[in-house]
Amino acid sequence: MVQNVHHHIFPNGLTLLAERMAHVRSAALNFLVPAGCVYDPPDQRGMASVLSDLITRGAGERDSRELTLALDNLGLDRDESVGTLHMRFWGATLATNLPAALEIYADILRRPHLPAGELDAVRALALQDIQGLEDEPRQKVLIELRRRHYPAPLGLDHRGTPEGLHKLTPASIRAHHGRHFQPWGSILAVAGNIEWEPLKQQVARLFGDWPAGPEPALKLVKPIGGKAHLHKDTEQTQIAIAYPSVPFGHPDYYAAQGAVNVLSGGMSARLFTEVREKRGLCYAVWASHQTFKDRASVICYAGTTNKRAQETLDVTLAELCRLLEGIEPEEVERVQAGLKSSLIMREESTSARAGALASDWYYLGRVRSLDEIQAAIDGLTPRRIVAHLRKMPPRDFTIVTLGPRALRVREVKTSANGVKAV
Amino acid sequence: MVQNVHHHIFPNGLTLLAERMAHVRSAALNFLVPAGCVYDPPDQRGMASVLSDLITRGAGERDSRELTLALDNLGLDRDESVGTLHMRFWGATLATNLPAALEIYADILRRPHLPAGELDAVRALALQDIQGLEDEPRQKVLIELRRRHYPAPLGLDHRGTPEGLHKLTPASIRAHHGRHFQPWGSILAVAGNIEWEPLKQQVARLFGDWPAGPEPALKLVKPIGGKAHLHKDTEQTQIAIAYPSVPFGHPDYYAAQGAVNVLSGGMSARLFTEVREKRGLCYAVWASHQTFKDRASVICYAGTTNKRAQETLDVTLAELCRLLEGIEPEEVERVQAGLKSSLIMREESTSARAGALASDWYYLGRVRSLDEIQAAIDGLTPRRIVAHLRKMPPRDFTIVTLGPRALRVREVKTSANGVKAV
Repeated sequence: MVQNVHHHIFPNGLTLLAERMAHVRSAALNFLVPAGCVYDPPDQRGMASVLSDLITRGAGERDSRELTLALDNLGLDRDESVGTLHMRFWGATLATNLPAALEIYADILRRPHLPAGELDAVRALALQDIQGLEDEPRQKVLIELRRRHYPAPLGLDHRGTPEGLHKLTPASIRAHHGRHFQPWGSILAVAGNIEWEPLKQQVARLFGDWPAGPEPALKLVKPIGGKAHLHKDTEQTQIAIAYPSVPFGHPDYYAAQGAVNVLSGGMSARLFTEVREKRGLCYAVWASHQTFKDRASVICYAGTTNKRAQETLDVTLAELCRLLEGIEPEEVERVQAGLKSSLIMREESTSARAGALASDWYYLGRVRSLDEIQAAIDGLTPRRIVAHLRKMPPRDFTIVTLGPRALRVREVKTSANGVKAV
Repeated sequence: MVQNVHHHIFPNGLTLLAERMAHVRSAALNFLVPAGCVYDPPDQRGMASVLSDLITRGAGERDSRELTLALDNLGLDRDESVGTLHMRFWGATLATNLPAALEIYADILRRPHLPAGELDAVRALALQDIQGLEDEPRQKVLIELRRRHYPAPLGLDHRGTPEGLHKLTPASIRAHHGRHFQPWGSILAVAGNIEWEPLKQQVARLFGDWPAGPEPALKLVKPIGGKAHLHKDTEQTQIAIAYPSVPFGHPDYYAAQGAVNVLSGGMSARLFTEVREKRGLCYAVWASHQTFKDRASVICYAGTTNKRAQETLDVTLAELCRLLEGIEPEEVERVQAGLKSSLIMREESTSARAGALASDWYYLGRVRSLDEIQAAIDGLTPRRIVAHLRKMPPRDFTIVTLGPRALRVREVKTSANGVKAV
């Protein structure tokens, strides 16, 4: 498949990426603005979440109702979400409707009304979102894991805190928007049945005079780490584990991803087989790789009955450490087959492509070709994966559990030579 | 877009459907077997769920481990799920790997080992799945809604009951498989970069001699309906509402779908606007149309704070009934834009197409063309939607709530002429 990828960096810093997919009729856009929740003022946590809701309640010439109607009239499937570092505007619709959608997004990003009269309703929703977590133990344990594992504010949940939400004012929201919505570090990625030149001209007209601001500063504090238990009278115990890995773009990145997929890619992977299939220990168990630019982690999750929670934790930790003892060639072949097939399937979706363009650019400053990714997958071997694991064995675990009883965490020592439970 | 759809009915009753999508490299399959949870023996509820797990634990020449590995080695993204009427086998991978996947599915469906030694582990997982619902109030309220709203066994949850699961034996599972896995009523749909003739020949070889059994019988009992409250000390109150509608294939089907989308299609739709945006009442609120062959329902859900639950229920019911008072042309235009755009986007996904082929065939005995669906969407008008609503106004509500306090349900009378709260 010939890829048809274009990019342009406007003088104000905005990056435009586009992939023409001539055989489809849809188009998707993915607009990353460096206004994620890490930039929330420390006494107003929840700022980005409230802003992401308020920002579509009127913009440019349209009031809230007119704006929502205009987007719905384009048949736009859309979502505004707050990540750690970016606020993300995603939309997909017929390719012929994309230019009209971009006009509206220029209003939303640059000229939102942020109506003071709607702040109370938006704040009420944000407070409910936090309160609702009490009824969602799985989400709650993963949020607490990230909070303890990463240096603040990197691991903080985008929902913020009730205290922070109560401190928000129309003026503080407006100021936050003015500071953090800017072309520097913003990435607009488009994929689908589009024409590059007209797209570039339109984006130049809509965003070319968007004034750039200073690069936002970020100060990290030492992570909490360690073990914690959240007491709750639930029917199931939730287990979440994190440990350090290498970030996207690192020479060992594919080896690290390979190790995670040996654990958790497909139904014959180790965690699924050992914890779920053989022992019937828990309904859900997985591991996944989570990356920032300069650091990364493996996150593991298991949900199980209270009675068998201790056994589930023990078996899961043992499987993490057992990686160091060796990996079979068949396991790597299976991981390669899975990665290749999912690569091909993601190539066929405009939304997945718009996401991949923006993500590649953010992490690497360039867009990887399909061939490059395929070569990296082909290059995986048991030796490379184990070599990576010896440099960076699963250890320094952050572990959070949630349920009626705390669990014992047996000290597990991993070293370059293997594993010892103490 | 020219559609390239083929179908063939084998003498034993198996239907094969295929759509060639020449511009992609992947292929997806969707195999429906008429072995959904309605056919569970009444004293062994949960049978289909256990069978759907056990059925991939060894088949044909391969034991459990070999089978899972063989599927993973094809890069197959897959899922086995139990619906009300069908067990569904879904898989997607590179088109070149599809024939090898089909060989394995023939073993799984026709020659599973159903190993007695693994029943305990599978049963333990199924019991955990039921127990886990206690920590998922949203799922729990919707399950109870369906149980009360539909005639049993149509509304029963596929997870079954602990008592039913404990009664399962290797022999009863084997007998159930023998009775319900058969070509009559089975539909295999494939979409992607495939060739029709070789596919048809392969399926003839794999399934042509699959012996047909008798059509399974289904006796329905009168639904419970009415209002119910599940007491639980949750932080949020869950609200679920169901009322009758017309099924897929009915002349009024698109009008009914249009009415639901006026309520809930897009962010400018009525429920989202009135309940969430204007009043900040609840984080999640939606309505959706759920269809069987001979009956259908509209299902509404809202999750909200305990304090504002009564108001949320009142406003939601009022919005359902207000539909009868009229619909604006702009609302219908917006619904049309949304339906068309999602139609186009689903045309581009092999998985969505494999799903649509099987679903069309099951409900209609034919595959609708894109043009036919587009014409139906174009034919929507406020008049048609309101005419349908006058014939079938929102009423005879089944309502289930979950939370610390029961809510009052005000009697709402709807008639051909309008709405009156009593």
